[in-house]
Amino acid sequence: MKPIQNFSQLTDHLRTFEQRKRVVVVCPDDLNTEYALARAIEEGFAEFLLIGNSGVLAKYTRLAKYSEYVKVVHIEDPEKAAIEAVRIIHEKKADILMKGIINTDVLLRAILDKDKGLLPSGEILTHLAVMQIPSYHKLLFFSDAAVIPRPTLQQRIEMIWYAIHACHTFGIAQPRISLIHCTEKVSSKFPHSLDYVNIVELAEAGEFGDVIIDGPLDVLTSCERESAEIKGIASPIEGEADVLIFPNIETGNTFYKAMTLFAKADVAGILQGPIAPVVLTSRSDSGLSKYNSLAMACLASK
Amino acid sequence: MKPIQNFSQLTDHLRTFEQRKRVVVVCPDDLNTEYALARAIEEGFAEFLLIGNSGVLAKYTRLAKYSEYVKVVHIEDPEKAAIEAVRIIHEKKADILMKGIINTDVLLRAILDKDKGLLPSGEILTHLAVMQIPSYHKLLFFSDAAVIPRPTLQQRIEMIWYAIHACHTFGIAQPRISLIHCTEKVSSKFPHSLDYVNIVELAEAGEFGDVIIDGPLDVLTSCERESAEIKGIASPIEGEADVLIFPNIETGNTFYKAMTLFAKADVAGILQGPIAPVVLTSRSDSGLSKYNSLAMACLASK
Repeated sequence: MKPIQNFSQLTDHLRTFEQRKRVVVVCPDDLNTEYALARAIEEGFAEFLLIGNSGVLAKYTRLAKYSEYVKVVHIEDPEKAAIEAVRIIHEKKADILMKGIINTDVLLRAILDKDKGLLPSGEILTHLAVMQIPSYHKLLFFSDAAVIPRPTLQQRIEMIWYAIHACHTFGIAQPRISLIHCTEKVSSKFPHSLDYVNIVELAEAGEFGDVIIDGPLDVLTSCERESAEIKGIASPIEGEADVLIFPNIETGNTFYKAMTLFAKADVAGILQGPIAPVVLTSRSDSGLSKYNSLAMACLASK
Repeated sequence: MKPIQNFSQLTDHLRTFEQRKRVVVVCPDDLNTEYALARAIEEGFAEFLLIGNSGVLAKYTRLAKYSEYVKVVHIEDPEKAAIEAVRIIHEKKADILMKGIINTDVLLRAILDKDKGLLPSGEILTHLAVMQIPSYHKLLFFSDAAVIPRPTLQQRIEMIWYAIHACHTFGIAQPRISLIHCTEKVSSKFPHSLDYVNIVELAEAGEFGDVIIDGPLDVLTSCERESAEIKGIASPIEGEADVLIFPNIETGNTFYKAMTLFAKADVAGILQGPIAPVVLTSRSDSGLSKYNSLAMACLASK
């Protein structure tokens, strides 16, 4: 498989799937979500079960003509809608869970419920995003911009595993993973830089398979060969990172938002850890961003 | 004074100064530094004392013709060069200290020396940067991308004061200062968000004068009006931030480097706190970046 290097190639790849992915959407209620759903139906890779209030379909005129691929269950209460969607995933009647206009906390409560939720014991819930940046020559994955405030070493290791699996589904045979800090120096003042030393040792011992992991590194030396050369930093990443692992949520979130606003990056993101990928869009995401996230989830659920 | 909204206007403003600023440069030894110095001389707002090894001027052919504005002191040892530069600032024989190709730690040790250094007791050393972003309609200041790992409340207050003073020298009468986090919610899980509550209270009580301070806010709601509106966040920043105060150094540094690499931002930065502005460039900074930082320092030393 040739590596997928942008979102257009992602859609091309999904078109080759023989079976549509089954997506359950909790409380769809906005036109950006409708855009994402309609386009995924038109591209041929998804079909939908909408769980929400009864006014939805009246609003969704573009979706109306795709009744073959859109079923609706009317549940007015968002909390009950979330619980029902989780149940449907458990019964394997859907492959992917997608958030509409519902409070994130309410949806997460249903996903994280110990008895009836979607997170197997021992798994962690983390956010993985992927960005198409006009000024970078390939897709850039990063974690975690949305869920884990201060990852432990074990959580960082899991985040890296999820990123590696995602890279593989995108056709990246040997992912280059950069552990982000403000400098390349390890210091006990920054506990995450000590974690990075452990992780690099694990990678060198072959623990993660065929990957290149290095850090601490800053964003410049991770993504621009010249910067590393000028500073005399010899990193096997060689300014060609596929994945950035951020030290904390403020850093990941700031990167996410600065890049979408100022660098005109398109972004997709999913939750990793649950038994099915979860598309956790934000109210302010564009239709295109919701569509890209849905596409990413459909690839991940393979 | 009309607000300075980009680096070209900054140079225009500096041209109106009657007196050249006197800049002492420690260990100049690269062509990007020479570009910055030569251009500042040509624009008419600075003159230089170079302290470093004796090979410098042989390399600096563009500077050679400006002997009226360039004096040289030969000191081979970088540590001694740094100490001499600090002494010269103390004697008020220079207005600004600029770093050439010398290890940052060595220069900082001379600046922070308790007896002979440049940091008055009670002041803090912090980094203030300002960016010209093609996709933003004005300059954007931010702190701290380089010096203080985890600011205390008192340090955050000082950082804000330095940013306010800088905004005033740039002609921004009522700076809008955004306290950055990954969300607008205050939580004891994130101690900096509690600091922000204190700071906003101080600002509302008039402690910082004529400013608008709000937070916690993310980068999107700080710099884009529509994002705040869609999310229903009513902030007096109104998506028009002049200043971003980052929660920690990893976040500030990641913003700095992602913006210069991916959003094609031009950036200038100086150290605040010492009795004179310090231009602390990095080996990998472009000539233009070094020039802009020098220009920022010349404005700040007014």
